[in-house]
Amino acid sequence: MRMVDLIQKKRDGIALTSEEISFIINGYTKGDIPDYQMSAFTMAVFFNGMTKQERADFTMAMVHSGDTIDLSEIEGIKVDKHSTGGVGDTTTLVLAPLVASVGVPVAKMSGRGLGHTGGTIDKLESVAGFHVEISNEEFIRLVNQNKVAVIGQSGNLTPADKKLYALRDVTGTVNSIPLIASSIMSKKIAAGADAIVLDVKTGAGAFMKDLEEAKDLARTMVDIGNNVGRNTMAIISDMSQPLGFAIGNAHEVREAIDTLRGEGPADLEELCLVLGSQMVVLAQKAETLEDARKMLEESIKNGKALETFKTFLASQGGDASVVDSPENLPRAKYQFEFEADTEGYVSEIIADSIGTAAMLLGAGRATKESSIDLAVGLVLRKKIGDKVTKGESLVTIHSNFEEIDEIKKKLSESIEISKVQVTPPKLILDKIV
Amino acid sequence: MRMVDLIQKKRDGIALTSEEISFIINGYTKGDIPDYQMSAFTMAVFFNGMTKQERADFTMAMVHSGDTIDLSEIEGIKVDKHSTGGVGDTTTLVLAPLVASVGVPVAKMSGRGLGHTGGTIDKLESVAGFHVEISNEEFIRLVNQNKVAVIGQSGNLTPADKKLYALRDVTGTVNSIPLIASSIMSKKIAAGADAIVLDVKTGAGAFMKDLEEAKDLARTMVDIGNNVGRNTMAIISDMSQPLGFAIGNAHEVREAIDTLRGEGPADLEELCLVLGSQMVVLAQKAETLEDARKMLEESIKNGKALETFKTFLASQGGDASVVDSPENLPRAKYQFEFEADTEGYVSEIIADSIGTAAMLLGAGRATKESSIDLAVGLVLRKKIGDKVTKGESLVTIHSNFEEIDEIKKKLSESIEISKVQVTPPKLILDKIV
Repeated sequence: MRMVDLIQKKRDGIALTSEEISFIINGYTKGDIPDYQMSAFTMAVFFNGMTKQERADFTMAMVHSGDTIDLSEIEGIKVDKHSTGGVGDTTTLVLAPLVASVGVPVAKMSGRGLGHTGGTIDKLESVAGFHVEISNEEFIRLVNQNKVAVIGQSGNLTPADKKLYALRDVTGTVNSIPLIASSIMSKKIAAGADAIVLDVKTGAGAFMKDLEEAKDLARTMVDIGNNVGRNTMAIISDMSQPLGFAIGNAHEVREAIDTLRGEGPADLEELCLVLGSQMVVLAQKAETLEDARKMLEESIKNGKALETFKTFLASQGGDASVVDSPENLPRAKYQFEFEADTEGYVSEIIADSIGTAAMLLGAGRATKESSIDLAVGLVLRKKIGDKVTKGESLVTIHSNFEEIDEIKKKLSESIEISKVQVTPPKLILDKIV
Repeated sequence: MRMVDLIQKKRDGIALTSEEISFIINGYTKGDIPDYQMSAFTMAVFFNGMTKQERADFTMAMVHSGDTIDLSEIEGIKVDKHSTGGVGDTTTLVLAPLVASVGVPVAKMSGRGLGHTGGTIDKLESVAGFHVEISNEEFIRLVNQNKVAVIGQSGNLTPADKKLYALRDVTGTVNSIPLIASSIMSKKIAAGADAIVLDVKTGAGAFMKDLEEAKDLARTMVDIGNNVGRNTMAIISDMSQPLGFAIGNAHEVREAIDTLRGEGPADLEELCLVLGSQMVVLAQKAETLEDARKMLEESIKNGKALETFKTFLASQGGDASVVDSPENLPRAKYQFEFEADTEGYVSEIIADSIGTAAMLLGAGRATKESSIDLAVGLVLRKKIGDKVTKGESLVTIHSNFEEIDEIKKKLSESIEISKVQVTPPKLILDKIV
């Protein structure tokens, strides 16, 4: 088999066989196939796409390019959730204890990552003592005991995907739905998921700005999952404004606690109930999404969800007192209010621009080497559609430095106030089950 | 400027500016732009093409990537001819002295090349003593004196094209008309041509198997030439069977001599008159193609064409006696006849398959290191449409070894005989002036 022939086949719109796709991924991972052939191939994929079968084969070839995590000693169906990213997305912190509290095993492997705020691990580390440096055995034991545990990413997972993503980034082939879909799905499958729930964000703050593209990506990932024996469901959710109110690590933990208590922002709670219902159904703990939702609502109401969160934190060394005394979370030195300079209705809160303001405070990492300040962040006081009077606070800024002109400038660029009434955007735009 | 942005621009179907194209070609030549970005770019060109302006800019950027030959000291308009390759194509050997004999300056830079037979220089070296290792000054002096000289390729011509072609060859982007056209045109322009005549071959033995594709390529090259100030004309000619009768170096020289004397194969003579007329018009030695053709026919008839060939050979050290005594050309040890095993009409002579048989005899190079046997080759006795009887010779095999079973096997796979009468293919399929 010669790579140049396979490039030409894809270029001419002919589907590749499973063997041909394995040859490409294995050869590329080992370095037998050079970058210059792989980049021509991915550009041909950009133009000609991939069939359903090719997407499934491509995903599984990437899964098998490195280590895979064996979660077979955990009882039950392991359901993982993936979000395509957004700003102030606290769903994982809520969902993990919430679905665990109704018996769904959550064996979460997570990273730190770059972005406006830290990753799930960074956020959890704002709870004093909490750590993810646990052995695989301890991890499995904790999931079996508490139904939820989080471990740091380890092993050589999907090296083909890592190498390919870096290449796509510099050769103009990031925006290819089959390549995005297989990249995401390969990572989830290699990390041991039996079933997968996807939260594909759309709108100004999301990677997929366009609703139709977001639907296409979601449908593609659901098809891949189902084709390779991992039951998969997806929702499309709005990310034109940040989710919830908090953007910043400790602030998001606090918001997660509020939500688990039934006192969180309405949009965050709703999204968690919708995604959580899909997780419960895929884990076969409920027959229908309606039944699943009732179980989750009940668990919030009777305190089981919050109790599970406490147990989870304590089991990994964390100070569970933060749940009842959130003032024990790290706090920034200064608080400033960012006030409305006119009256009217909030008509726009540009999510990624707000995220950049949070990063300027120190809430996120710009490079792998950056340090992160868990205490700082932004808490929105208003969301799209809310009425404001002149001088009323739009955002509370939690900062460890006093000179915040740059932050305020960014915020004033991010938030629009209109004279006419504005309808808030719809949160759940589609469900693919 | 970042290459990844230019890849995306081309990928999204937006035309690149002249500056952007220069950035790409210069960066790639210097090694600042890596192969993996260039191959993604060329695949995007494969799918989205290039505008007329982009093709002209791309061609001239490749011309300026290395040395260019200065022929300004040669009087008159220097017209070069390029053929897209075929089997038994003796046109250059005929055309150079033929058009020179009517006053068109022919300053030919030529190579050895790989293929079924040698390149123009190899063929000419079958004349004892002939050599192309002459200085630039001597080359220019000879063209001014005799109107024709040949020199070996020297200098660092179009390094961008060399590097890019090698990359395209292994990344599935050879078959892109704008890339083929700019590659050919950049080489001719860098070699100093003021005007260019193109012979685009089509049919089973040609690179462009399909007539419409051949026309598209020809039209693209003519547009590029005219856009960059080099008057360009083209013809589309048939290469479904070999041109003329001879395939092999010394055999083609002999056939060229016959043709210059007016006793060559009808198809070779006709093609040379058509291409030659375009060269004469572009050199402004005649007003119309009809007038030009008359001048060339006259030059063959009155012996001037043949005389020019003699002078040309002698001026570069060659034994001009071969013109009157072709038996002074190298001769192979053995002659065998390949006979028809049935009676009927020749319906097919697959040109590239016949070429492979000639290469097996030693007439061409498979790799740069292969040596070449100037004496061996094939001489067709029949062409498509000819009637044959059983046992009649179809091909004379000139070989330096006796064991020719493999050659005969190849020939029998290449030639078809039909019971029903067959119309010979049309030679000149289109003219673009």
